Amino acid sequence: MSLGRLSVGVSAGLGGWLAGWLCSSKSEAPPRLRPLPGHPMFGTVSAAMPVPADAPMRDVGTIDPAPAKNASRVSQIMRFGFPGLDNVRSQSDYVLSYDRRARVPHWVFEHLTAESVQRNDEVDRAGCAFNADESIHPYFRAENSDYKGSGYDRGHMAAAANHRRCQEHQQETFLLSNMAPQVGNGFNRDKWNDLEMHVRKLCKVFPNVYVCTGPLYLPRREADGRQRVSYEVIGRNQVAVPTHFYKVVVAESPAGHLEMEAYVMPNQAIPNETPIANFLVPPDVIERAAGLLFFDRMDRSRLKRVNGRKTTWL
Amino acid sequence: MSLGRLSVGVSAGLGGWLAGWLCSSKSEAPPRLRPLPGHPMFGTVSAAMPVPADAPMRDVGTIDPAPAKNASRVSQIMRFGFPGLDNVRSQSDYVLSYDRRARVPHWVFEHLTAESVQRNDEVDRAGCAFNADESIHPYFRAENSDYKGSGYDRGHMAAAANHRRCQEHQQETFLLSNMAPQVGNGFNRDKWNDLEMHVRKLCKVFPNVYVCTGPLYLPRREADGRQRVSYEVIGRNQVAVPTHFYKVVVAESPAGHLEMEAYVMPNQAIPNETPIANFLVPPDVIERAAGLLFFDRMDRSRLKRVNGRKTTWL
Repeated sequence: MSLGRLSVGVSAGLGGWLAGWLCSSKSEAPPRLRPLPGHPMFGTVSAAMPVPADAPMRDVGTIDPAPAKNASRVSQIMRFGFPGLDNVRSQSDYVLSYDRRARVPHWVFEHLTAESVQRNDEVDRAGCAFNADESIHPYFRAENSDYKGSGYDRGHMAAAANHRRCQEHQQETFLLSNMAPQVGNGFNRDKWNDLEMHVRKLCKVFPNVYVCTGPLYLPRREADGRQRVSYEVIGRNQVAVPTHFYKVVVAESPAGHLEMEAYVMPNQAIPNETPIANFLVPPDVIERAAGLLFFDRMDRSRLKRVNGRKTTWL
Repeated sequence: MSLGRLSVGVSAGLGGWLAGWLCSSKSEAPPRLRPLPGHPMFGTVSAAMPVPADAPMRDVGTIDPAPAKNASRVSQIMRFGFPGLDNVRSQSDYVLSYDRRARVPHWVFEHLTAESVQRNDEVDRAGCAFNADESIHPYFRAENSDYKGSGYDRGHMAAAANHRRCQEHQQETFLLSNMAPQVGNGFNRDKWNDLEMHVRKLCKVFPNVYVCTGPLYLPRREADGRQRVSYEVIGRNQVAVPTHFYKVVVAESPAGHLEMEAYVMPNQAIPNETPIANFLVPPDVIERAAGLLFFDRMDRSRLKRVNGRKTTWL
């Protein structure tokens, strides 16, 4: 592949604005979404560590090496900013950043509407095959053989049922670059699925729903007081089994107001009766743990609720 | 900070070639350094997983958000390619990629010469202070308080003694973005230091020595046959304590031949009598584990030795 294709990917694939970011000397910093110190949803850690006005802007990172198939769709999906820019891949109906060390995504971004999530008899989930992502260097690529016999599901980050406009959209959610190892019973097939359904239901009320999904590797405090991150890796390619998964959702109302919800669930069987609201967390907890910044191009004056509570910073 | 500074960082900070990579549609793919299948230094895994000719080129990643202080120096240091491009920072005499999730580097790159490593009475190591790197977003920034009482040293990735041209070069190696938690006795102060000294000694023979240093988080096979990655995190910012560290070195002879050495050492006390040659590993083992590709702009026809053994691919 010639590097020449890259610039096409930059200018066409990201709808122009990222190209301008990279190549123009005139662009202005977009507004940041940062909680104000003392905001009740963001806890004492945020309050102790406000982001200074002169904090460095988001770094510009890895750009999709191939031209995006649907450039305007990418700019729609990524409307409120990239959480990070490491090894970005633009699919027809979702965008992801790939973690080459863990062989799973850093994050996967979707833009859902009532139309994209509605049932469509012309789309056949059963006809979709799980395929390795040939765009990932073979040193860092997850294969079906890695999951086989591991006891873990190939868990979609961009959910298959979120992409029902056409068979191609559905099929692309089955790329292994969109997967992470998930506990099946009680999690991928149950409580995590409940959360995915909850997000789709938001499309009945909100015309635009943006959802960012990914893995976490959270430490546990041990008996001696020290904290330790510990997770399994599976297969010859040592695909990481995340300890937790997150979803950060922004829904836009017909009036243009925004509401945010942020969830973290452990990668384990969760009792069926547990409400998903039990897994709401302050968004910055996920940002710190994941090393990412979510929705940072969003005008926070439009953000009216976080995790169901009215924002108080305005 | 205006995004406008970014383009300056791209075009000036990376000596032009990365800017061309991003913005030109005419550039050609540079040659890749990949072992041929069956090369004795690269083992059976490489042979089983050759890189196809159409493997995607390196992704273009995070660019230093500020103009490099010394643009031509950056292009010298990074002459043979970037291992990855996530959150790159260009210092006066080294370049690093920062891992926002782990709060330590992904990699640190140096270009050493006899001049840069020679003793210089005008440079005072004792006068250097360990400072947090203000260019890192506070959510992801390591602080001195994280290390305090942890039992771990603040271990330099770019070694202080490699940067003796002036006090500024020396001081910049004390940024906490250049550090990772290292076991002190038997490792940072002993065997790891031996390896650093070995690399400096190469400068007596080779006019140019390029060294890439970073952390690894390697899995261990447990009694049940499953593999698990497990590492401590320290302090309020949960700075990762890597299980291992790597160095990949390329030395250029006066005749223009290249020799490569690749080392992995466990982050633990190592008996003093252990020769550093015991820690040589095939370079692709580090690439796979780190999620990085080293020296991939290097013309491999010039690479005459890997880990002291003659290459046989020519």
